[in-house]
Amino acid sequence: MTSPLADLRVQIDQADDDLVAVLARRARLTAEVGTLKSRHGLPLYVPEREAQLLATRREKATAAGIDPDLIEDILRRVMRESYSSQESDFPAAGDRSRAVVIVGGGGALGRCLASFFTRSGYHVRIFEKDDWERAPALLADAGLVLVAVPIEHTCAVIAKLPKLPDDCILADITSIKQAPLAAMLSAHRGPVLGLHPMFGPDIRSLAKQVVVVCPGRDPTRCQWLIEQLGIWGAVLREELPERHDRAMELIQAMRHFTSMVYGIFLQRENADLDELMRLSSPIYRLELAMVGRLFAQSPQLYADIIMAADGLPALLDQYRSVLDDLLKRVREKQRDELIEDFNSAREYFGELAPALLRESSELLRKAHDARDPSAQHEQSRARDRALPSARES
Amino acid sequence: MTSPLADLRVQIDQADDDLVAVLARRARLTAEVGTLKSRHGLPLYVPEREAQLLATRREKATAAGIDPDLIEDILRRVMRESYSSQESDFPAAGDRSRAVVIVGGGGALGRCLASFFTRSGYHVRIFEKDDWERAPALLADAGLVLVAVPIEHTCAVIAKLPKLPDDCILADITSIKQAPLAAMLSAHRGPVLGLHPMFGPDIRSLAKQVVVVCPGRDPTRCQWLIEQLGIWGAVLREELPERHDRAMELIQAMRHFTSMVYGIFLQRENADLDELMRLSSPIYRLELAMVGRLFAQSPQLYADIIMAADGLPALLDQYRSVLDDLLKRVREKQRDELIEDFNSAREYFGELAPALLRESSELLRKAHDARDPSAQHEQSRARDRALPSARES
Repeated sequence: MTSPLADLRVQIDQADDDLVAVLARRARLTAEVGTLKSRHGLPLYVPEREAQLLATRREKATAAGIDPDLIEDILRRVMRESYSSQESDFPAAGDRSRAVVIVGGGGALGRCLASFFTRSGYHVRIFEKDDWERAPALLADAGLVLVAVPIEHTCAVIAKLPKLPDDCILADITSIKQAPLAAMLSAHRGPVLGLHPMFGPDIRSLAKQVVVVCPGRDPTRCQWLIEQLGIWGAVLREELPERHDRAMELIQAMRHFTSMVYGIFLQRENADLDELMRLSSPIYRLELAMVGRLFAQSPQLYADIIMAADGLPALLDQYRSVLDDLLKRVREKQRDELIEDFNSAREYFGELAPALLRESSELLRKAHDARDPSAQHEQSRARDRALPSARES
Repeated sequence: MTSPLADLRVQIDQADDDLVAVLARRARLTAEVGTLKSRHGLPLYVPEREAQLLATRREKATAAGIDPDLIEDILRRVMRESYSSQESDFPAAGDRSRAVVIVGGGGALGRCLASFFTRSGYHVRIFEKDDWERAPALLADAGLVLVAVPIEHTCAVIAKLPKLPDDCILADITSIKQAPLAAMLSAHRGPVLGLHPMFGPDIRSLAKQVVVVCPGRDPTRCQWLIEQLGIWGAVLREELPERHDRAMELIQAMRHFTSMVYGIFLQRENADLDELMRLSSPIYRLELAMVGRLFAQSPQLYADIIMAADGLPALLDQYRSVLDDLLKRVREKQRDELIEDFNSAREYFGELAPALLRESSELLRKAHDARDPSAQHEQSRARDRALPSARES
């Protein structure tokens, strides 16, 4: 019996070797595509080509008797790899003889953006807090001044900037938009643009990453920067600053805040985190991850995001009153009323709820794929010890 | 210029066709492995073989100049597919001449488990709420009675069961364990086992799925059921019922409850969900998904989980007091104190925080791979309209 199984395993290993070879060949081809596109100033991310490629391969998979979702998942993962390896060089949409000055460019996101400008051939200057004396020289020939300092300093830094060339774009990447835009419009007479990159500094490619754009002044002169972001692969979403800030308070500030509350709550309860992890289903593991990941990041950054959200205390009052209402249902065992509350919110979420369920379930399946139950935080007591602690009662 | 690009694209399409062919060949081979294993009663999921296969392929990928994480991600996704297609038949660890009776087997998870028992050749009987008159006949030769009714009915149903054969296992799959175990130990003299499957009825394979096991009585006679779950691929985690229930209150009940609060909060704020989705980064999208998915599911199920968690009101009081403490920090602009709270929780999370950050960041990258910015809820206004609404102020 072991012999036919061993034989099949040899053949599976051979198939996996072939898989590696095909992927290596594909990677060489996409690297060539990258070089070619870069030389001719063509955009990296072409949604239509991607969609057509996936549709064709789904059909071929179905014809070959395999699940089309399998090939789509694999190709999307492969494409991520090729986007990040294609970015050695990018064309420039703006004037490369004018400097790009990144104020606070020593920070993580500032450095990340600086590397994209550099790869498009711009001369990038980093302006840090000790550089105020040199400011006029650093900014004299700037075509773009990008403010990338912590939220709490943004408006003060903008106000302190020396006079910029009239045609220079003044832009920022703060996660709130109303106050920085007002500060930029008052500090500078030329083109002004508010940006909020919806990603962290750990990305290797801008392909498909969302950047929210709040126009400030002179969109024509801002156009090259918009185009530049598009060349790098970013997806731009235009929004009014008021609506942007409101949305970010509802999602970003509220979720960071409530996650922080939950983490500190677990600490005060002295919950056994290893045990919670060990007993978690993929979804509870993800819930824990969304809370725990916060505490591996910068306390200053989160404190600033939370403190800068002016509407947050009022939103938290509302959140707290919902919490109290539902807690009352639980205490008074009002099961029917709780179900009514649930159904009313279900109506509000509408078609989005099943769409989010499908999307997150597929993501949980991917999380489960990656799971290695023998790894740290995953030790199985039951299997190792064959249920020795079984108790009689 | 278009000609060399077109030529490269033809070659990429050829590579992708080869990829489909290799995957189809691999699928045929793993199906044969499945048949062979099933015939010889071998376990489906062999962690050592999986780990060795991945390690070898990672080495080969590195040698071929491609990222080893790419090949590992792809192979894990492929293995998910082969686990679910390998499960046509399973060996039995128990006595197939004795019936498996699933009380409440008409429910989603009951049906799911019934299909596994059937595929291992057991004779499965479904016992529903109209079957009480036939109960003695249905249960007379049972080797296993598995209670799979909604939480609120579990203990009453157990108490109402007629006398079972002395060597029959009485088990349940309720998401709380203390009360059902006590009810089972008092209703039955023979082997008793509490189970909590940490997955939903939508899974296609039990491979690597966690089942929490709370031994009740006579572990020797319960052993075949433990082994049976292992044959299907499940990972068993033994736990004391008190500790299990406490952990589930902290994670399951609290997270469901606070997600419900957040969803109803968004409703009361009348937040524009389409806009929130449109402006979301992958992480905020996932946060919204974790909340929204709740409202696509059964209100009764969630109400029951929340109502059955006896410790929930006390935990919510504690949660609420943390919320109030942090809200005070925000209102009174106590930035340093907020950072102190954060750092203290960071210490509590310890090494788990960076591990969860890495794990969830990789998952967010996978979510991003799957993203199609041209899809519903993803329309980009900025690109389509080339920033026409740019405003001057």
